[in-house]
Amino acid sequence: MSRDARIGVVGATGAVGTVTLRLLRERGYENVRAFASARSAGRQLDGGITVEEASPEALAAGGLDLVLFSCGTSASRELVPHAVEGGALVVDKSSAYRLEDGYPLVVPEVNGNRAAEALETTRVVANPNCSTIPLTCVLKPLHDAAGLRRVRLSTYQAVSGAGAQRMERLRAESPEEHDLEFDWPWEGSETEEEAKVRAETRKILELLGLPLSATTVRVPVLVGHAQSVWVETEKPLTPEHAEAVLAGAPAVRLVETPTPRAAAQTEDVLVGRIRPDRAAESNGLALFLACDNLVKGAALNALQIAELLLDGSRSATQAA
Amino acid sequence: MSRDARIGVVGATGAVGTVTLRLLRERGYENVRAFASARSAGRQLDGGITVEEASPEALAAGGLDLVLFSCGTSASRELVPHAVEGGALVVDKSSAYRLEDGYPLVVPEVNGNRAAEALETTRVVANPNCSTIPLTCVLKPLHDAAGLRRVRLSTYQAVSGAGAQRMERLRAESPEEHDLEFDWPWEGSETEEEAKVRAETRKILELLGLPLSATTVRVPVLVGHAQSVWVETEKPLTPEHAEAVLAGAPAVRLVETPTPRAAAQTEDVLVGRIRPDRAAESNGLALFLACDNLVKGAALNALQIAELLLDGSRSATQAA
Repeated sequence: MSRDARIGVVGATGAVGTVTLRLLRERGYENVRAFASARSAGRQLDGGITVEEASPEALAAGGLDLVLFSCGTSASRELVPHAVEGGALVVDKSSAYRLEDGYPLVVPEVNGNRAAEALETTRVVANPNCSTIPLTCVLKPLHDAAGLRRVRLSTYQAVSGAGAQRMERLRAESPEEHDLEFDWPWEGSETEEEAKVRAETRKILELLGLPLSATTVRVPVLVGHAQSVWVETEKPLTPEHAEAVLAGAPAVRLVETPTPRAAAQTEDVLVGRIRPDRAAESNGLALFLACDNLVKGAALNALQIAELLLDGSRSATQAA
Repeated sequence: MSRDARIGVVGATGAVGTVTLRLLRERGYENVRAFASARSAGRQLDGGITVEEASPEALAAGGLDLVLFSCGTSASRELVPHAVEGGALVVDKSSAYRLEDGYPLVVPEVNGNRAAEALETTRVVANPNCSTIPLTCVLKPLHDAAGLRRVRLSTYQAVSGAGAQRMERLRAESPEEHDLEFDWPWEGSETEEEAKVRAETRKILELLGLPLSATTVRVPVLVGHAQSVWVETEKPLTPEHAEAVLAGAPAVRLVETPTPRAAAQTEDVLVGRIRPDRAAESNGLALFLACDNLVKGAALNALQIAELLLDGSRSATQAA
């Protein structure tokens, strides 16, 4: 790892940016600069970093090896090209580039080998949606063991996935006001979030025709996305076999009751309640998973991608 | 309707009992007695009723035409026989009798014709689980239209389904403590709640082999149970046809976004987000529903059963 790498964090004052800065500190990165909107520029953050304005000029000026973006899709579309122009590698957490050709969409434990492709091409790797990351961590080992035939899931997503302001709103709410929410806008008869989960899961698993139906719902929980999942496989897969497969899978931890609070502040995707799908004709399993949407669901996954890129970049330099 | 019927409410101080007394007042019942544990006896309730102790002797003493029980399974097992002995008809909201032969399990809009069977036999009708009631209200018209082949659902259940104390706990909690919960105990690899939803749905719809898989989850919402449902039918059923069928179904109201808060304090089962199940091989729909678990999910459904029984009983008396 290149702990001396010069790292920029755009969207540094947001829910994911805050976790990103904490993870960078914990991992010993010392050359870190924080960028945010003009409104936040000049603010002093935990760790003694002063926020700079995320202007096109600042990002294009160079001096950064890698920039982590967590600032929303339209800001990413505007600013990412300037960071690339300035010579940086980029990991973008928005949905701006996820489904575009030439932009690897990476969960390191699932398809980490794809990240290096960006070194020679766009210089940008996309970080998946916070529901897609834990889902693919669980689906990939099951696919390798028995072949995925179809997937259905209902999500229980924490409000922090919608940003720091939505967390403040939940904190200010009375329990009488708590409600479920569907994320707008609709894409046809689905929410945009539901369409994202399908398209991104297909791209990451390289199963472009995988039948997948998602209903995505936000629940009044601050941190931790959970999912109720049904999986049908090509080959038979007992719950015991699935447990053994998942027990040996990276990023995944088997538990009896995977809940958001159990997942919060951990780096693992918790999975459990693995049982036969009593509605499936054959080879069906039901399971439940939970993951810290700000950590493995966002900041940690992006940082893991960044480390793959920095290592790949250094290897290339040394080989040259 | 027999507004002069002498009605007893056992468990009158609980979350469902409170709604039951309100509905009885709103519907003009004046001969109402409230029963609860010895601890609550003597308490004065809204509407000026004084709580009596729900002792076997008080219930066996007679003077009641019908008793509505909402007091938990073990208390129902103990007390219901005394109310029957005292000459009353009983609607029991616990799971004590739901799956027993000779005890009709009734959702009036779905299988109301079954209620009268109890008049000649056990004198007890069971009220289904608060997740089963809205589910069967939606499944029955779809079954009549196209034949149910299989059903999967994830629930988002409000804490009030676990009683008034659980509501107080949510009110006292900080948002940081909000979490998802699975109701214990397990029955094999399922929660008891998941097994209930399948067994009760099968009994009510008279589809004893219906393939049904449920994952039941409690969310930090005070009132209103929601469900994310996938349905496969024998015959093709487009979302538009399903909407037309449900628009004409009793107890059901089509809305764009069925959420617990929209359902709270209404008598309808809200259903919406009806769309093709992109994971089904054929004839699959995804939909979302929400229902006030204390109203149609419990107190209202039981009161509707009570009115069916009182009407049936009066007709029988008049015919004799």
